[in-house]
Amino acid sequence: MANVAKKVSWSGRDRDEEDEPPAAGEATPVLADLTPDLCLPQETEATNQFPSEIPHNEKLLSLKYESLDYDNCENQLFLEEERRINHTAFRTVEIKRWVICAMIGILTGLVACFIDIVVEKLAGLKFRVVKDNIDKFTEKGGLSFSLLLWAILNSSVVMIGSVIVAFIEPVAAGSGIPQIKCYLNGVKIPHVVRLKTLMIKVCGVILSVVGGLAVGKEGPMIHSGAVIAAGISQGRSTSLKRDFKIFEYFRRDTEKRDFVSAGAAAGVSAAFGAPVGGVLFSLEEGASFWNQFLTWRIFFASMISTFTLNSILSFYHGNPWDLSSPGLINFGRFDSEKLGYTFQEIPIFIVMGVVGKLSLYIHRPCLQVIEAMLVAAVTAAVGFVMIYCSSDCQPLQGDSVAYPLQLFCADGEYNSMATAFFNTPEKSVVSLFHNPPGSYNPMTLGMFTLMYFFLACWTYGLTVSAGVFIPSLLIGAAWGRLFGISLAYLTSGAIWADPGKYALMGAAAQLGGIVRMTLSLTVIMMEATGNVTYGFPIMLALMTAKIVGDYFVEGLYDMHIQLQSVPFLHWEAPVTSHSLTAREVMSAPVTCLRRTEKVGTVVDILSDTSSNHNGFPVVESSPDPTQVAGLRGLILRSQLIVLLKHKVFVERANLTLVQRRLKLKDFRDAYPRFPPIQSIHVSQDERECMMDLTEFMNPSPYTVPQVWLGLQAVPGTGPAWLAALGQRNTLVSSPGFIWGSWLWQSPITTDTHAEVSCAGRSSVSLPPSLQVVGLVTRKDLARYRLGKEGLEELSLAQT
Amino acid sequence: MANVAKKVSWSGRDRDEEDEPPAAGEATPVLADLTPDLCLPQETEATNQFPSEIPHNEKLLSLKYESLDYDNCENQLFLEEERRINHTAFRTVEIKRWVICAMIGILTGLVACFIDIVVEKLAGLKFRVVKDNIDKFTEKGGLSFSLLLWAILNSSVVMIGSVIVAFIEPVAAGSGIPQIKCYLNGVKIPHVVRLKTLMIKVCGVILSVVGGLAVGKEGPMIHSGAVIAAGISQGRSTSLKRDFKIFEYFRRDTEKRDFVSAGAAAGVSAAFGAPVGGVLFSLEEGASFWNQFLTWRIFFASMISTFTLNSILSFYHGNPWDLSSPGLINFGRFDSEKLGYTFQEIPIFIVMGVVGKLSLYIHRPCLQVIEAMLVAAVTAAVGFVMIYCSSDCQPLQGDSVAYPLQLFCADGEYNSMATAFFNTPEKSVVSLFHNPPGSYNPMTLGMFTLMYFFLACWTYGLTVSAGVFIPSLLIGAAWGRLFGISLAYLTSGAIWADPGKYALMGAAAQLGGIVRMTLSLTVIMMEATGNVTYGFPIMLALMTAKIVGDYFVEGLYDMHIQLQSVPFLHWEAPVTSHSLTAREVMSAPVTCLRRTEKVGTVVDILSDTSSNHNGFPVVESSPDPTQVAGLRGLILRSQLIVLLKHKVFVERANLTLVQRRLKLKDFRDAYPRFPPIQSIHVSQDERECMMDLTEFMNPSPYTVPQVWLGLQAVPGTGPAWLAALGQRNTLVSSPGFIWGSWLWQSPITTDTHAEVSCAGRSSVSLPPSLQVVGLVTRKDLARYRLGKEGLEELSLAQT
Repeated sequence: MANVAKKVSWSGRDRDEEDEPPAAGEATPVLADLTPDLCLPQETEATNQFPSEIPHNEKLLSLKYESLDYDNCENQLFLEEERRINHTAFRTVEIKRWVICAMIGILTGLVACFIDIVVEKLAGLKFRVVKDNIDKFTEKGGLSFSLLLWAILNSSVVMIGSVIVAFIEPVAAGSGIPQIKCYLNGVKIPHVVRLKTLMIKVCGVILSVVGGLAVGKEGPMIHSGAVIAAGISQGRSTSLKRDFKIFEYFRRDTEKRDFVSAGAAAGVSAAFGAPVGGVLFSLEEGASFWNQFLTWRIFFASMISTFTLNSILSFYHGNPWDLSSPGLINFGRFDSEKLGYTFQEIPIFIVMGVVGKLSLYIHRPCLQVIEAMLVAAVTAAVGFVMIYCSSDCQPLQGDSVAYPLQLFCADGEYNSMATAFFNTPEKSVVSLFHNPPGSYNPMTLGMFTLMYFFLACWTYGLTVSAGVFIPSLLIGAAWGRLFGISLAYLTSGAIWADPGKYALMGAAAQLGGIVRMTLSLTVIMMEATGNVTYGFPIMLALMTAKIVGDYFVEGLYDMHIQLQSVPFLHWEAPVTSHSLTAREVMSAPVTCLRRTEKVGTVVDILSDTSSNHNGFPVVESSPDPTQVAGLRGLILRSQLIVLLKHKVFVERANLTLVQRRLKLKDFRDAYPRFPPIQSIHVSQDERECMMDLTEFMNPSPYTVPQVWLGLQAVPGTGPAWLAALGQRNTLVSSPGFIWGSWLWQSPITTDTHAEVSCAGRSSVSLPPSLQVVGLVTRKDLARYRLGKEGLEELSLAQT
Repeated sequence: MANVAKKVSWSGRDRDEEDEPPAAGEATPVLADLTPDLCLPQETEATNQFPSEIPHNEKLLSLKYESLDYDNCENQLFLEEERRINHTAFRTVEIKRWVICAMIGILTGLVACFIDIVVEKLAGLKFRVVKDNIDKFTEKGGLSFSLLLWAILNSSVVMIGSVIVAFIEPVAAGSGIPQIKCYLNGVKIPHVVRLKTLMIKVCGVILSVVGGLAVGKEGPMIHSGAVIAAGISQGRSTSLKRDFKIFEYFRRDTEKRDFVSAGAAAGVSAAFGAPVGGVLFSLEEGASFWNQFLTWRIFFASMISTFTLNSILSFYHGNPWDLSSPGLINFGRFDSEKLGYTFQEIPIFIVMGVVGKLSLYIHRPCLQVIEAMLVAAVTAAVGFVMIYCSSDCQPLQGDSVAYPLQLFCADGEYNSMATAFFNTPEKSVVSLFHNPPGSYNPMTLGMFTLMYFFLACWTYGLTVSAGVFIPSLLIGAAWGRLFGISLAYLTSGAIWADPGKYALMGAAAQLGGIVRMTLSLTVIMMEATGNVTYGFPIMLALMTAKIVGDYFVEGLYDMHIQLQSVPFLHWEAPVTSHSLTAREVMSAPVTCLRRTEKVGTVVDILSDTSSNHNGFPVVESSPDPTQVAGLRGLILRSQLIVLLKHKVFVERANLTLVQRRLKLKDFRDAYPRFPPIQSIHVSQDERECMMDLTEFMNPSPYTVPQVWLGLQAVPGTGPAWLAALGQRNTLVSSPGFIWGSWLWQSPITTDTHAEVSCAGRSSVSLPPSLQVVGLVTRKDLARYRLGKEGLEELSLAQT
């Protein structure tokens, strides 16, 4: 047994199994040898107490999501390449990074422009048709025809949008923000950064908005920016089978993720005209290390993005170079001189924050095109009925209303409710912010808030590409304005309440209550209003909304992520996870490979669908059987696949190299879609050959001792863990085990499973070697959550 | 020898000494035993080649600066306390953090208000006196009396300002930004965050500005905010000998530094009305980990700060709650509709960036009150002569000019040059930005730029509290405006050049060229102009200024830091430091203590002025003399001092505890001014007692193998190193050594010196132990700089 790979199936995570002796040959005896060590008694105790302490519950964690590999595999190939690169070449790589960021910014800006212009054209067309029809039938009677026309128009547009999403690329549904959050957190969501997804997303969001659903086009921009970034940075499109042979250096998860951060930031920037907010969004969602140069590049991409959008829209709107519309939605300038808030109002803004968070969205997983069409029709019907029943007539002033509906109002007046429903949501938000006091009847606002809230909730679960930012803002702005009006009424004007101000705070509170972003959202709102002064009350409203909201339920995106059982690592560890040790959270036992391994063994291990491991510790097989095999490195499934594909085998007989030498390029060419093991044919003769893994394995995987506690012993945490790794004891002086791989700028482990333990047996002439006893991966950490009754442990599920 | 502490004096860092056998008993034989290990041959080779490879030069690194201790010492006391703290107590600590941040914001805002109001009052008084005098003598002749009055007024005010700085607290000189950069980087600059420093700084900056020097009051706000934060977070003032018995939990470097970050951000926020810019400043200077909650608190402090300033100033200016002046300097609103820049102008903005960087400041270390007075007088004289010779008369329009000097102009006109010199610099900047085209004569601007540049350079070296932001902005604005005017002239108006726009770009480029901040400065400028649209050209100008500037010379602050020989760790490692290993950079040999050590030995080691170590590895002394003493922990000088002070000794005879048990509180009470060893009396009897260090030592200091390479082997780098530590192999499977201590959110090692090496000798029943072979501290890394001819190694100096 000592000379063959220890292969043990890793069957589920049932704690009770741990007391059984592991099937692996040496690991347990070594542990037994080591018991005199001061660490072990405590551990064993802790392990025994474990099952009774932490209650299991029905929540699941899916095993289908792989992690991104954010640990640069610094194997011999990589180090050789790095050594060859001189100062100039480093600079070239750096310049390429900037060029890519500029391209990301430009393309994201262009996509935003495209969406904006197409939506405006199509929506304008639709509104004109409906308006003419209504105008016609208002006089003649028979407005039900208008309703029918409106409903059919909306439904058919939404149908197309829903069909392409449901049948071509389901991952393009929704805003894409939860998916991008996951990606930045390090979870690989299939198809999320593909070109096809981008296409469907862009078309889908246009059709949803034109179809009159209660959705926005801003959220999807973040996803779009991320896809653009992932595509450009690789210098090729796998979907289109085009390889431009550029940017090959960036073909790995670490680099790609940095660019995706920039893309997401560029998306935020284009959506809200908020480049700094975009940078902070990326940092808030993805950063664990502060990388100054990366941040600066992200900011560059964001700036370019808003600049591109601004320039093109200025041409489109006929005011070349009037750079006053930096985002898809512009809140208009809040002039602080005219509209200062007063100190007494701050408590009120805080109360608004409390209200903001109370509204919950319910996520509906049922996905049907019919449902989407139904919602579109209902939206039209609700709008129509509301408009029909409303008697809120307002005088027409200038061209402030794009499509004024007269209906039963007097000449020179328009139906105020119709404006709210008949505008694009962006325009409605702006008019709620800026229209002079009295533009909206309180009754109108109340009804509108209620109805729109109901529609937005229903819409959220649909299989269409659409964002939730704008509906949230709109609902918030409506009740905020209503609040302001009521306040002025109640205090008989004692508080000079400009309702627009309250609309802004309401919008901020509502959005904050729903998405639960804090720093980045404050900055986004500040930038969108172009006013630093409002930052303070916005911040207060957002913080209140978050604090109150967190008390009741998680944010929308987090709920979404949790419902999909994604192994997401939160920023903070559950506070009560103090006493967990690495030994308790690790997966064990797992499969090891020898430094020189038989091809057949490797193929068998990779083909084993029951374990489906992605990483394998490489151990030294000592000629002396009394010696314990020590850890030498870690090799990934993807690397083994490439080795098998290129048949980098050594004949058993003469140990000479049969095939050409592999280069890093071969790995990069295969990235990111490595073929499955089934597609690689290995003949019976080849199975008898050997593979030398030394050159390709990562010789320095992260290892920790078994009794290792994280920063105050906190598994399940994201970057705080990582930080802990940087400063804590990582002496592996007691039995230790591999820590998956952490990486630059993210709280990630790869999904690698292995076993390492530390053998004290080595002779004096050799450095003491480590032996694998277990492995901690992202899923092992993500299992721990803080529930109502303390620490909860999620179950793992294959789906 | 095996049972007593190995004490070896650590005499300088001369590489040649390394070839001599170290005086320590076991270390070398162990190394010899280990030579069969594959790592050692390479190392030995590298060490031998070393002296010839890296050229020494005359540059020095001072040993007088200690590092802050950013590694939480997780000893038994600490862990016990952490385990006692439950969920509620954690929340209380968290709430306290927020309260402290709010207080930091409020106090920083108040200090900013105080400075602003006092400066305005005093400067107004001075200007009125001088103006009346000039008006009187303009008619009568004999303007030299006016000059004399002006010069004397200025000189006497500056004299007071200079005297208090030079004789009471020299560290209050200058803007304090380099000092705060160092503090955030982890270097302990003596007196930098004391109450006295704050007092002198505030008075000094008021007097400098009133004295008419070419300085600003913005930079010092950053320092002031930092001092306020350091003071409040400790809940006591050591200077005033008041202990409020609150916030005791925060009495350690880690926590204090987080609050100082918030204070610096609040300072930026108050100075420029740029809360987001403040956050980014703190991150850019101090962050290595991204800590979401800390960032959010910093933002909170910044917001409170600008809000406080804004509110109070609005009352002071008689427009209660008109929150339109968020900072000490407000650039005024750049209205993008009116003042859009055009695409063709962008290359021009870039050229301005090139010009911006070319201006270098020369730091003059000579510090004299006389010089300060002279500069004040010369400033007055230059201003006077310039005004006298100028014939640029402009019509009076409204109240745009605070103190219009008519001089020889016609009635209803004022002297334009006088405005530039006679305003506070802040007002001059704003008028350069916003005054309509034609307000300034090109000749006036040219002369003003030249003269002011000369004055600002001279002023920078003076021993007064003053900032360099405003003079830089002013110079930049002046030549920017001149540039704009010239451009309009040259192109005969083909480019519609609003000179204010060019003034803004010039100011950004000039400031960027001098201070070399990028991300934060862009955001500060964006927030100060209240205009997102200008962000893009500002960013381009700043980047160009930085790139071109870096080609010639370091930024002003970096120059300052380097001249003071501060062991500052830059963000990026020298690119050519690839092949350095830990063994090459470490200090060796150093002093170890045993887990149970004789009091006399400890006192002797601490009193040894020739070594003056701050940290000591604690080793296990095995009863078996063939066993090598293994590393057990690290103890700091400050901890030993507290132990000695409280006489926590064990009688040698009966090994019972003589004194009460120490608590964490005892260490916190002594922080941060631990008494020197000389002040602690230890009797001859007590010298024979033993001390048990087990409870107090940090049991998990960071260790790395001797052959360890950083992230691509880069010592001398700041956070990049740290990041590397988080992800790289830290198996100490070959002879290793202690890595000082890194910490949460910063690139720091404490100044601890020790020796660890890994012994492979331990028996099977014991985990392999580590033996100290050397220690890497901040200074060992900061020694490596990238010079003109590759990697340079600085010498260490005691001064």
